[in-house]
Amino acid sequence: MEERFEYYMPTRIVSGSGCVQKNASLFRVYGERALIVTGKSSAKNGALSDVEGVLRGNGQSYRVYDRIPNNPTVESVTEGARIARECGADFVVAIGGGSPMDAAKAIAMLARQDAKEGLFAHAIGEDVLPMLHIPTTAGTGSEVTQYAIITNDEKQTKTSIAAKSLFPQVAFLDGEYMKELPQDIAVNTALDAMSHAIEGMLSVRAGVFTDALARESLRLLLGERKALSEGTYTAESRQNLLHGSTLAGMVIANTGTTAVHGMGYSLTYFHQVPHGRANGLLLPAFLRICAKQIPQRIEEIYAAIGMGEEAFSAFVDALLGRRETYQDSLLRAYAEKASLNKNIKNCMVYFSEEDLYAVLKASLSK
Amino acid sequence: MEERFEYYMPTRIVSGSGCVQKNASLFRVYGERALIVTGKSSAKNGALSDVEGVLRGNGQSYRVYDRIPNNPTVESVTEGARIARECGADFVVAIGGGSPMDAAKAIAMLARQDAKEGLFAHAIGEDVLPMLHIPTTAGTGSEVTQYAIITNDEKQTKTSIAAKSLFPQVAFLDGEYMKELPQDIAVNTALDAMSHAIEGMLSVRAGVFTDALARESLRLLLGERKALSEGTYTAESRQNLLHGSTLAGMVIANTGTTAVHGMGYSLTYFHQVPHGRANGLLLPAFLRICAKQIPQRIEEIYAAIGMGEEAFSAFVDALLGRRETYQDSLLRAYAEKASLNKNIKNCMVYFSEEDLYAVLKASLSK
Repeated sequence: MEERFEYYMPTRIVSGSGCVQKNASLFRVYGERALIVTGKSSAKNGALSDVEGVLRGNGQSYRVYDRIPNNPTVESVTEGARIARECGADFVVAIGGGSPMDAAKAIAMLARQDAKEGLFAHAIGEDVLPMLHIPTTAGTGSEVTQYAIITNDEKQTKTSIAAKSLFPQVAFLDGEYMKELPQDIAVNTALDAMSHAIEGMLSVRAGVFTDALARESLRLLLGERKALSEGTYTAESRQNLLHGSTLAGMVIANTGTTAVHGMGYSLTYFHQVPHGRANGLLLPAFLRICAKQIPQRIEEIYAAIGMGEEAFSAFVDALLGRRETYQDSLLRAYAEKASLNKNIKNCMVYFSEEDLYAVLKASLSK
Repeated sequence: MEERFEYYMPTRIVSGSGCVQKNASLFRVYGERALIVTGKSSAKNGALSDVEGVLRGNGQSYRVYDRIPNNPTVESVTEGARIARECGADFVVAIGGGSPMDAAKAIAMLARQDAKEGLFAHAIGEDVLPMLHIPTTAGTGSEVTQYAIITNDEKQTKTSIAAKSLFPQVAFLDGEYMKELPQDIAVNTALDAMSHAIEGMLSVRAGVFTDALARESLRLLLGERKALSEGTYTAESRQNLLHGSTLAGMVIANTGTTAVHGMGYSLTYFHQVPHGRANGLLLPAFLRICAKQIPQRIEEIYAAIGMGEEAFSAFVDALLGRRETYQDSLLRAYAEKASLNKNIKNCMVYFSEEDLYAVLKASLSK
């Protein structure tokens, strides 16, 4: 691990059952009019009506934009920004999983900045609408990061935009909003969060601060392995998963992700494999290759996981069920694509195109 | 531990040997003219000349205000603010231990706000000069908190002022600046940091996030117990102590402190006992009383410390050497004074005036 590191995470976190309603004053300071950004299904877990109630109680007006697709597109965030300008939104409230939360960041930015050179080429400035994020899944950590992952059709992948100004002002963590979460989404998002914590510990930017957060994240997430395996969640286990996911978000806000995410984007872009599942499919084989080069560090990670390599691999396998498989030629192509991703350089272990192919082959070959 | 919690710490942290010189650009963004706030001795460890070199290299001008006494007074921060206005400072650079770093916060605020109602009665607003903090001791954690502790002669104690706007913008963590630190200061400041981590775990505002930081803090600080006991430090041990202290600062930024600090202020105000030493004197007896009421939580704390009650108590005793002792009537008076401190309510265990007296008596009786 590098001795030098940087750490920055300016989002205010408010956690606990009912925290949105109990902190209505935190909404009041950001202006008169809100744009609520959410997905079609995110609206149904109680979070939207809680936010609407708070805004009405505060005498604030709002408009709901709920046309964010899974894996948000440039079109959807451009439309969202147009609506934000049209209704004169002073701030944005994001409700949902990674897609609405990431889309809300791009919308909050595009509402104030003309990205004439295109979203991905635009140098993001400071002027962004204030954002309040309410995760309703425990996976992305977007509520505490400066990243927004948007589908990039030109490059046929998902591309991350990043800027200090994209950190939300406030993140509300209430596990109650995960009560109706389908089991497949609960599992996929938990795998995403585990991947964040683990990749963060393998980043060249890892430091003692992010390590402490990553270990706590893994302790909380893996502490719920029975709940995840059986699909039985209590209020406490939901809150633990959510805290684990947010902690992992605080980690990657400072460390970035590595090759797992780099490879996973192709599975999501070309085969609609859910993002967290894509990471879960690749993680065990990725760790096995890392273990050959940095065995001590990988041991530290398994110590944080609280399971050995085999047990963890079996646990992930059981969560995933039947694996997707792809033609060898596709796996070759995805390895090449991943080798061009900037997060490859971010890992303590250098993954050549051949190494990436080895991970993809071990994980997904027919 | 409360299920609900809040977490906020917006300071950017930059860590590692040479981090001031390697991050000259972080100074450039805050304006043309700096006021450097430091103590007489803090100037001699290399930090001041590094900062001067960076500012000159950036083409920025600066003035040095080095008349901050130990336990800064209202007069010293008022004078500092007058100088900041006089030289048109755009930002403040604080170099030193808790006294210069806390004073710099009050100066940065008073340079922009008229506190006509008095420093301690003033409602601190948002308009504060940007601050860059460089700790040269590993104890206070002031570089990552919103607190400034200033001597309050009217109330004959030390009083904390606090506001979101008092978080420094950047904290530079370079253990090299602790190279010339006298052993008594190294020990006293380490005891302060331990006290922050431990009191943070006993705060009613403790949560999983602060717990993770507190545990890592105690792991790092107590991992250097041999260095602390023997007064032999390596570059690595200095950096570990500094990281431990900053992590503990991140904890108390969110949890506040408890009765240990409340009682310690009297020892410092009336008997010039160094702040960290005052906490160290009281900590073991405080923990013994807490253990009667919340044994499980205290066990978690000793697990994080990595020693049992007796071993930790003996370790602290050895660090402290001969204890100060006071007349019973004084201890009674300090118990009464501490019982009025607002941080008494902040503890998981309620300490009545009688309990406070019991701690003081066990720690300091003739």
